[in-house]
Amino acid sequence: MEIKKLEELLKIKTEKKMRLAVVACHDEEVLGAVVEAEKLGIAEPILIGDKKKTDLIAKEKGIDISNYELIDEEDLNMSAEIGVKMVSTGKANFIMKGLVDTSILLKAVLNKEWGLRTDSLLSHVMIYDIPSYSKLIYLTDGGMNLQPSLEDKVKIIENAVTVVKSLGKEEVKVACLAAKEKVDPKMTATVDADELKNKYIKGDFSKGTIVDGPMALDLAVSKSSAEIKGYKSSVAGDADVLLVPNIEMGNGIGKSITYFADGKSAGIVMGAKAPIVLVSRADDHEAKLYSIALGSAVAAFKE
Amino acid sequence: MEIKKLEELLKIKTEKKMRLAVVACHDEEVLGAVVEAEKLGIAEPILIGDKKKTDLIAKEKGIDISNYELIDEEDLNMSAEIGVKMVSTGKANFIMKGLVDTSILLKAVLNKEWGLRTDSLLSHVMIYDIPSYSKLIYLTDGGMNLQPSLEDKVKIIENAVTVVKSLGKEEVKVACLAAKEKVDPKMTATVDADELKNKYIKGDFSKGTIVDGPMALDLAVSKSSAEIKGYKSSVAGDADVLLVPNIEMGNGIGKSITYFADGKSAGIVMGAKAPIVLVSRADDHEAKLYSIALGSAVAAFKE
Repeated sequence: MEIKKLEELLKIKTEKKMRLAVVACHDEEVLGAVVEAEKLGIAEPILIGDKKKTDLIAKEKGIDISNYELIDEEDLNMSAEIGVKMVSTGKANFIMKGLVDTSILLKAVLNKEWGLRTDSLLSHVMIYDIPSYSKLIYLTDGGMNLQPSLEDKVKIIENAVTVVKSLGKEEVKVACLAAKEKVDPKMTATVDADELKNKYIKGDFSKGTIVDGPMALDLAVSKSSAEIKGYKSSVAGDADVLLVPNIEMGNGIGKSITYFADGKSAGIVMGAKAPIVLVSRADDHEAKLYSIALGSAVAAFKE
Repeated sequence: MEIKKLEELLKIKTEKKMRLAVVACHDEEVLGAVVEAEKLGIAEPILIGDKKKTDLIAKEKGIDISNYELIDEEDLNMSAEIGVKMVSTGKANFIMKGLVDTSILLKAVLNKEWGLRTDSLLSHVMIYDIPSYSKLIYLTDGGMNLQPSLEDKVKIIENAVTVVKSLGKEEVKVACLAAKEKVDPKMTATVDADELKNKYIKGDFSKGTIVDGPMALDLAVSKSSAEIKGYKSSVAGDADVLLVPNIEMGNGIGKSITYFADGKSAGIVMGAKAPIVLVSRADDHEAKLYSIALGSAVAAFKE
């Protein structure tokens, strides 16, 4: 079943309940979100963190955590290591960042001995549900990769395509964004987009993926804009994935959607053996829940 | 009087009527827009272009151009030269691109002998009127400068500040955007934003300008997001000007506003002796009129 609205994420029933390792769980917001996710049947949390602090938060906030496994570990690096090892040994299916720096968690994820490395690249995928747009938009990468190379972009696209497919869509249209449609050697975004399109034509991308570009955002999401500019493409006006050439463009589009267009969102880090849920303090409660549900859906798809 | 909505642009009465040199006027949409602008009392067009084609368009579309000066010139380079010289000799106050490549018009504008060069840099300023945001947003530069240097950014900010002041605002808040708030040597956008802030503190910007950054878009336009992240700044949540570090971010934010947030817009090129109106085919009729009215207001302010 294809997910067309983010709220449908909360209703996905994975075949097995996915187990979520929560690294540094002693955070009020994170604890609240994972417990609610469990109650909604989205995931089964395994809490890793400072037990004293966690118990105190649970008591103060009236959150019942008595039914969950809680591994007492004050040290943040050790918490990350325990969480990552749980995933690599199959005890957990995905992982979530609690009150710990992203860099500590990712260092553990990328550990060469016991981490979750793959041949891919870690990349961030945001899903936006925009009242004024007819389908979900998958934006990548406005969070991790500053100015990805052509090879990086191939991996970033594949990571995003996996997310789209996890939510039930079999044909995935990828728009490689730039500031214009003409290939201009002074604008790497346009040159790379053209190369990515050529790679698609050669059959380099996974099945069901259609890649086109360079195109500016208007062509990716508006059929009438594409018509006016005479831009013919099956991706134009109907993009699922928006690949951005730099983190600033991704961040700018994403935040425009949230702050100007009242969009809802969910986010996930892809490219490791299991999806990684990284929520921001500025995310509202709903966004945190959506991200956990997204992680669960992707983890189940990868099983 | 401060303009707070784009529609108010159409009601500005400049002391003298500003004269608009229209380069390559033989274009249906451009002709329609300048004639309507004249009828609304916004500007007085001087048409330069292919007279035969222009007359034919006027006849077919029922546009009465009998009262306007029309200089017959088929050659596009010559049309641009005539238009630019009209401005440099004071016969026109601003200039608009018709059916001619932007590069031809700008080459004439930048001509060292008779062009409209200044010590500044040509830069593009878009104004957005967003239903969900309480004030006008001035976005620069999502159209001309690919990846401006620090010195370029100073000029780009000053150009935008002139536009804001032309519309009656005396205090201008400038947010130097990046993907995050922390200065990171790997991200030029953050380093430059920090430098621009320091230049502001040293008093390098024109009177009434406040510059802050680096900040991501959410902090620039949302007070609550700034509070959650503990970011203290008089610009945060109240930015007039959004300075972007690269053309992709500017283009992405601008088009997100237009296509996802139903924003209206007007655009202008600054940095020459007179404002330059460049409209895109994809702009609707209203956007073209707003841009002409904006050009007129800026031209009157510069007088």
